[in-house]
Amino acid sequence: MVDVVISGTGLYVPPNKVTNEELVAAFNAHADQYNHEHKADIDAGLIPAKQHSSAAFIEKASGIKSRHLVDVEGVMDLNRMMSKLPEGGHGDFENPCLQAHMGIEAGKDALKQAGLTGEDIDYLVCSSAVMQRSFPAIGIEVQHHLGTKGSALDMVMGCSSATYGLITGINAIKCGMADRVLMINPEIFSTMINFRDRDSHFIFGDIATAVVLERADLAKGDDLWKVIDTKADTKYSNNIRSQYGPMTRLDDGSLMRQDMFFVQEGRKVFKELLPLVTSFINEQLENLDLQVTDLARMWLHQANINMNMYAAKKLLGREPTYDEAPTVLENYGNIAGAGSVVAFHENRENMASGDKGIICSFGAGYSIGSLIVEKL
Amino acid sequence: MVDVVISGTGLYVPPNKVTNEELVAAFNAHADQYNHEHKADIDAGLIPAKQHSSAAFIEKASGIKSRHLVDVEGVMDLNRMMSKLPEGGHGDFENPCLQAHMGIEAGKDALKQAGLTGEDIDYLVCSSAVMQRSFPAIGIEVQHHLGTKGSALDMVMGCSSATYGLITGINAIKCGMADRVLMINPEIFSTMINFRDRDSHFIFGDIATAVVLERADLAKGDDLWKVIDTKADTKYSNNIRSQYGPMTRLDDGSLMRQDMFFVQEGRKVFKELLPLVTSFINEQLENLDLQVTDLARMWLHQANINMNMYAAKKLLGREPTYDEAPTVLENYGNIAGAGSVVAFHENRENMASGDKGIICSFGAGYSIGSLIVEKL
Repeated sequence: MVDVVISGTGLYVPPNKVTNEELVAAFNAHADQYNHEHKADIDAGLIPAKQHSSAAFIEKASGIKSRHLVDVEGVMDLNRMMSKLPEGGHGDFENPCLQAHMGIEAGKDALKQAGLTGEDIDYLVCSSAVMQRSFPAIGIEVQHHLGTKGSALDMVMGCSSATYGLITGINAIKCGMADRVLMINPEIFSTMINFRDRDSHFIFGDIATAVVLERADLAKGDDLWKVIDTKADTKYSNNIRSQYGPMTRLDDGSLMRQDMFFVQEGRKVFKELLPLVTSFINEQLENLDLQVTDLARMWLHQANINMNMYAAKKLLGREPTYDEAPTVLENYGNIAGAGSVVAFHENRENMASGDKGIICSFGAGYSIGSLIVEKL
Repeated sequence: MVDVVISGTGLYVPPNKVTNEELVAAFNAHADQYNHEHKADIDAGLIPAKQHSSAAFIEKASGIKSRHLVDVEGVMDLNRMMSKLPEGGHGDFENPCLQAHMGIEAGKDALKQAGLTGEDIDYLVCSSAVMQRSFPAIGIEVQHHLGTKGSALDMVMGCSSATYGLITGINAIKCGMADRVLMINPEIFSTMINFRDRDSHFIFGDIATAVVLERADLAKGDDLWKVIDTKADTKYSNNIRSQYGPMTRLDDGSLMRQDMFFVQEGRKVFKELLPLVTSFINEQLENLDLQVTDLARMWLHQANINMNMYAAKKLLGREPTYDEAPTVLENYGNIAGAGSVVAFHENRENMASGDKGIICSFGAGYSIGSLIVEKL
């Protein structure tokens, strides 16, 4: 079977950035307003008062200092606390919708790095934790604007969206369906966030990534990463969930109900998912006769600093250095399926031929997905 | 590379059925109510009156006599005209959500036909025109209840959902990622229908299909179909579209706006998509050195009787017999991505070893996808 390489990665970062301090100012003003409006019930002990948050709490709990969002103004508006639909956000035939736009820009960046143009690509996989609409597929809209050939498809896979999209693309090349695949991964997860919820309002940022995959013998780029192995595993859990979708319309008046946003049982996720992740990686390495010390780098899903450090430490048996398990949480937050790819995109420059690493996602589902790669 | 066979197909049909006559009674009562409420504007020529529909018009335009829906009562309620959320429709950890439930039932049916149980499956692809929620993936919920191994993923691909799901599964087997794949295809497209729209309220029905794919050398079933070839093509179009999705919440008050439902430019679709479909199939046959007369059967997407007959006639150069291009529109309506698989499920009993056929989808995107299969 043919070998597959990663020959380019790309990024699109929405221009609107919001710091912990700004988010906290909005949240605390909301908490004050809420407590004032519900004073009687709170005083009577019927409902709890909303506690203030702080930038220090957020940074300690998550490692995040700021994140980019598709819209900040709406989030900071006390009467709204939710992104506004960006102008032209739905798009039309001439102008891409917001999510397609993000994917197109990341795609251009990745194609450039691989030294290719859209028409060199014969299969496009668009994968995200949340798709802007169901049809026509966002991937087909991206295909149209980038001029890629063949077909495109949409996948939805929570925080494993990018790795599962990559595995689908790698399979397509290995079995001869395609020679060159563009994996597009536009994440607009802020649309699912309840910015009135102290525990989760700060977690996520928006971003898009893209990755070019090629049949190894065709690739001409100067930064090639051979895919040595892929692995995927899923196990059902409701601990990261949102009910939002077509059923929301049937479930009267529920658009803003709490369960229609991202809801997480954070402690359960930490306790249940991390052991799955570490055994998953150990098992994959064992099957390849590799040790964790054979990995120069672990580009992990960017969940939060504590989960990331716990996983890396558990695998290594000691504290990781920054280079061994780089994080991008500080500037981007948890960026859903894009996390491990952004970590790879931003932290591979100083690596040498023969160096190996793992790109590994984990999250809602639960799902875990990984690629072990080697620099050529 | 290994050969792949289809060794089982399964169906789940929601118990609630509605005839053209019943749908028309509800629609006409709505039209009367609308015309009464807007009498002044209609009399002044500011807006057009809503025309009555008829069962005969629907049958002539579509070939549909009845369809099954996840809920009929809400659709027939003049004050609602939309399915109600079925009891327990969102599900929880113990009880599957509606879409997972449909998929699980179809999956059991397909596994039984293949002589397998859930644990024989090592990859599950869940594909639909519309997913009930984004996370956790519906496919992972189905995996949990059927006890399948390995991983599951969700794909969203309009009326090509089943064929694109099958191609993804076939690729996974061919490249060694899996030995046995279960493709689950639960369609709840009625959630996207504006039942107050005369042109589209009658088109769609709900259903779930499932297909078992196996490495040919492992398959032990008594009705095996070798996959000779697969092909996929997409070309962007807005002629079948809905804006509904995460952006709906940001786009204030738009839940019931017309563009949040299925909207179709039917004539443009007919004119643009059918030539793409016929050249697609001709090209695929040519690459395989086959003639259309080598196909004993064409299991086409069930769009409407006129599109289906036009495509079959164009390909054959004459009127098709029922057996050559079977339709299931009469009882099920257009069932989104499930159409070609249901046609295959219900119309292959009398075929002989060596007989070939094509399972071909086409629809929103635009997308076209096909499998050429041969009975072993």
